[in-house]
Amino acid sequence: MNFRLVLKSIGVLLICEAISMLPSLIVSGIYQEHNALSFIYTILIILSVATPLIMIKTRTKNMYARDGFAIVAFSWILMSFFGSLPFVFSGTIPSLIDAFFEASSGFTTTGASILSNLEEIPKDILFWRSFTHWIGGMGVIVLTLAILPSLGARGIQMMKAESPGINPGKLVPKVGETAKILYGIYILITIVEIVLLVMAGLPVYDSFIHTFGTVGTGGFSNMSLSVGAYNNVYVEVIITIFTFICGANFALYYYMLKGDLKAPFKDEEFKFYFGVVVIAISLITLDINTHVFHNIWESLRYSSFQVVTIISTTGYATADTEQWSMFSKIILFSLMFIGGCTGSTGGSIKNIRILLLFKVMKRELLQIIHPRAVYSVRIGKKALDEKTIAEVLGFFAMYIIVFIVGVLIVSLDNLDWSTTFSSVAATLGNIGPGFGIVGSLGNYASLSDLSKLTLSILMIIGRLEIYPILLLGIPSFWKRVSI
Amino acid sequence: MNFRLVLKSIGVLLICEAISMLPSLIVSGIYQEHNALSFIYTILIILSVATPLIMIKTRTKNMYARDGFAIVAFSWILMSFFGSLPFVFSGTIPSLIDAFFEASSGFTTTGASILSNLEEIPKDILFWRSFTHWIGGMGVIVLTLAILPSLGARGIQMMKAESPGINPGKLVPKVGETAKILYGIYILITIVEIVLLVMAGLPVYDSFIHTFGTVGTGGFSNMSLSVGAYNNVYVEVIITIFTFICGANFALYYYMLKGDLKAPFKDEEFKFYFGVVVIAISLITLDINTHVFHNIWESLRYSSFQVVTIISTTGYATADTEQWSMFSKIILFSLMFIGGCTGSTGGSIKNIRILLLFKVMKRELLQIIHPRAVYSVRIGKKALDEKTIAEVLGFFAMYIIVFIVGVLIVSLDNLDWSTTFSSVAATLGNIGPGFGIVGSLGNYASLSDLSKLTLSILMIIGRLEIYPILLLGIPSFWKRVSI
Repeated sequence: MNFRLVLKSIGVLLICEAISMLPSLIVSGIYQEHNALSFIYTILIILSVATPLIMIKTRTKNMYARDGFAIVAFSWILMSFFGSLPFVFSGTIPSLIDAFFEASSGFTTTGASILSNLEEIPKDILFWRSFTHWIGGMGVIVLTLAILPSLGARGIQMMKAESPGINPGKLVPKVGETAKILYGIYILITIVEIVLLVMAGLPVYDSFIHTFGTVGTGGFSNMSLSVGAYNNVYVEVIITIFTFICGANFALYYYMLKGDLKAPFKDEEFKFYFGVVVIAISLITLDINTHVFHNIWESLRYSSFQVVTIISTTGYATADTEQWSMFSKIILFSLMFIGGCTGSTGGSIKNIRILLLFKVMKRELLQIIHPRAVYSVRIGKKALDEKTIAEVLGFFAMYIIVFIVGVLIVSLDNLDWSTTFSSVAATLGNIGPGFGIVGSLGNYASLSDLSKLTLSILMIIGRLEIYPILLLGIPSFWKRVSI
Repeated sequence: MNFRLVLKSIGVLLICEAISMLPSLIVSGIYQEHNALSFIYTILIILSVATPLIMIKTRTKNMYARDGFAIVAFSWILMSFFGSLPFVFSGTIPSLIDAFFEASSGFTTTGASILSNLEEIPKDILFWRSFTHWIGGMGVIVLTLAILPSLGARGIQMMKAESPGINPGKLVPKVGETAKILYGIYILITIVEIVLLVMAGLPVYDSFIHTFGTVGTGGFSNMSLSVGAYNNVYVEVIITIFTFICGANFALYYYMLKGDLKAPFKDEEFKFYFGVVVIAISLITLDINTHVFHNIWESLRYSSFQVVTIISTTGYATADTEQWSMFSKIILFSLMFIGGCTGSTGGSIKNIRILLLFKVMKRELLQIIHPRAVYSVRIGKKALDEKTIAEVLGFFAMYIIVFIVGVLIVSLDNLDWSTTFSSVAATLGNIGPGFGIVGSLGNYASLSDLSKLTLSILMIIGRLEIYPILLLGIPSFWKRVSI
């Protein structure tokens, strides 16, 4: 491990975090809230930790995959820790564990919350809470599109890196350039959504909050009833469309901006994502039309919002899905394990891995029928080698195993099945709300500290695609390599 | 497809089923029950269907993998269908769907039941019900140890077929010889357990019933309170030990009989199975000692029985696990996805596949740390090739996807989470009881016909290691091949 470089890089990222608190200070001024000092203290603490780090002189700039993973893992953990301080200092969330849960949930764009009665929380604190989504989303895009592939991260990145057309890691030859283009798209989407929401009748402040939550596929709201509080169809449609957009690969929008408007429908992963959304909306619409709303348009309205908000791993709500029948709940629960596309701000297993699972299954069955034939598994036009397939399936297995371990720990709280399972699925997959106590209109406040801490870590594990955090537990990860 | 050979083979197996009803007729005579005619009618129906089939002249004896799969899939379905007729004719289970559920549950050695008040059911009918476990267990051993490998079935069989030492498909060179040895062991275990149970104080009839349920890892009892009804520690210990034994690879006992008493502890899969059992018993003992029994020996007694009965996929009960805390329930629920070892009568995913998952995970993590090193995944001394790994992981993925589809269908019943999830896990994994309504002392009677039919099919899918039944849905499976 190149400790000097790792520490220095973390220092740089922490400085960025301190800077990212400035907009919240401005909001504090505009709305005459009283928490400016909470932010200023936090900024000072961050600077006092980060300044020595950025002063470290690195002997070499050589960076190996594991250095990259260490930077990513530690910066997400530390940013969540420091990001939680304004909640504590302002007295909004007195418990440090609760505050860490809330900040992790923000930076990982999960949107799981321990807060209730949001209408009583100061506006500057809520702004910071939502702004962490926006920063987190930006971090994820660069992480999955630019950093992980260039570090030679395994499995999905390797697969994508060589599939023609949708190769986000190489939109342009240099990583830095790619990141700039993607940031541009990210900011463009942000601005367009804010404008549309204001036009639809949302207050400016609320438009910012919900745009941060949408673009980062986070899901923090400033209303206790989430998006449902506005009961405004235009707002719901805008948010549905933008959550869908942000659950898809951002590289597609680069190609669309360059004139290839059909780019999404040339991408197998996007087609799969689109197909799953259409099927899920259809099934749930029929189900809740029979059991809940008895009005096909109302059913379509609520089902499409909930389906897109969950598969994109955003987690806003317009309905109390606890009241829906089991069939709809199970569909939504299953979507929690699919999540967004590669190169989106969405989390969870990702559509391309699920698609690959189905392709491998089909191959296995055909292989039995025709034992001597040679079948390859293709994504786009590229045949994948067996090692890559094993890696993707290995990721899937690892996801399930981390899920089970999480469920075991949370089960110590002795809550019901729906809360136990869905709280883990919703945090590991960066969705936010689940079912039961942590349902679409519930929150995580009543869970034990052990569960909250576990779920915070699961959010970070899920956000970083499992490996970086697990690696920290392997001794040889820490060995110093002579360069 | 070699239709003639497939039909002829099915005919032969149906004749075997007709013969297997004779012991029940004897029981009918001994206990002066009134259902002899139900069996005789069933035997006549089977003979009238099977006789034309065995008369078919085959043009060639050439058999391809898919012919083997077709024989296996159809014979399990048809044997369950015909096996359900005595329940219907005797009036014990008037509904054909319920009877099919019960018979599938028997032949697949699942042990899920729609019956209650077992004390009121005629003894000959209950004998037949339990005897299907014994036949099913025998079928499974030959299926997984002799038939599947020789058909070139994929994944786990390929893996085992080449690992030295534990190579059940080749205990002796010929498939027929291997089957005979394994049957010998199966019958030996059966006799020993019956004798021990009688010595422990169980009535002879009950000893037969519970031995069939144990040796086949089925779990049908003749008592509504299952094994708990006797409140006899000796009986519990005997059944715990024998379920554990029958959840392990039968080939190990062949080597032990030949003098290699350490054979089990040379087998990686057995060591893993043993380790999981020890850890699960320890955790649950501590948990239920704190929350339920407040007596460490009582806790150990009940936890060890439940852990072994579930991981071996038997499903007997000595306690109402619904009353246990969530942590213990989740451990038991997780064990449902592990199941027995290859070459046992146990079902579910199997220890060796789970072990392989962990090995692949470890490899992935090491590979990131040392990108240029070459790591192989080993079972025993053999390094597995990437294709085999992909196949095993593919099986795991397929298992999970079949599970989710099952949960979706059962969710239409709109029952609670624990019932919905555990009913599918417990049938697909051939365990039997789950949690909630279908808990250790509950039953499946109140589910809808659609759910019962789905779960019956899931039992067969699980029992046949997923592929054979899924293949029936692929058009090219049915194509005639010119030989």
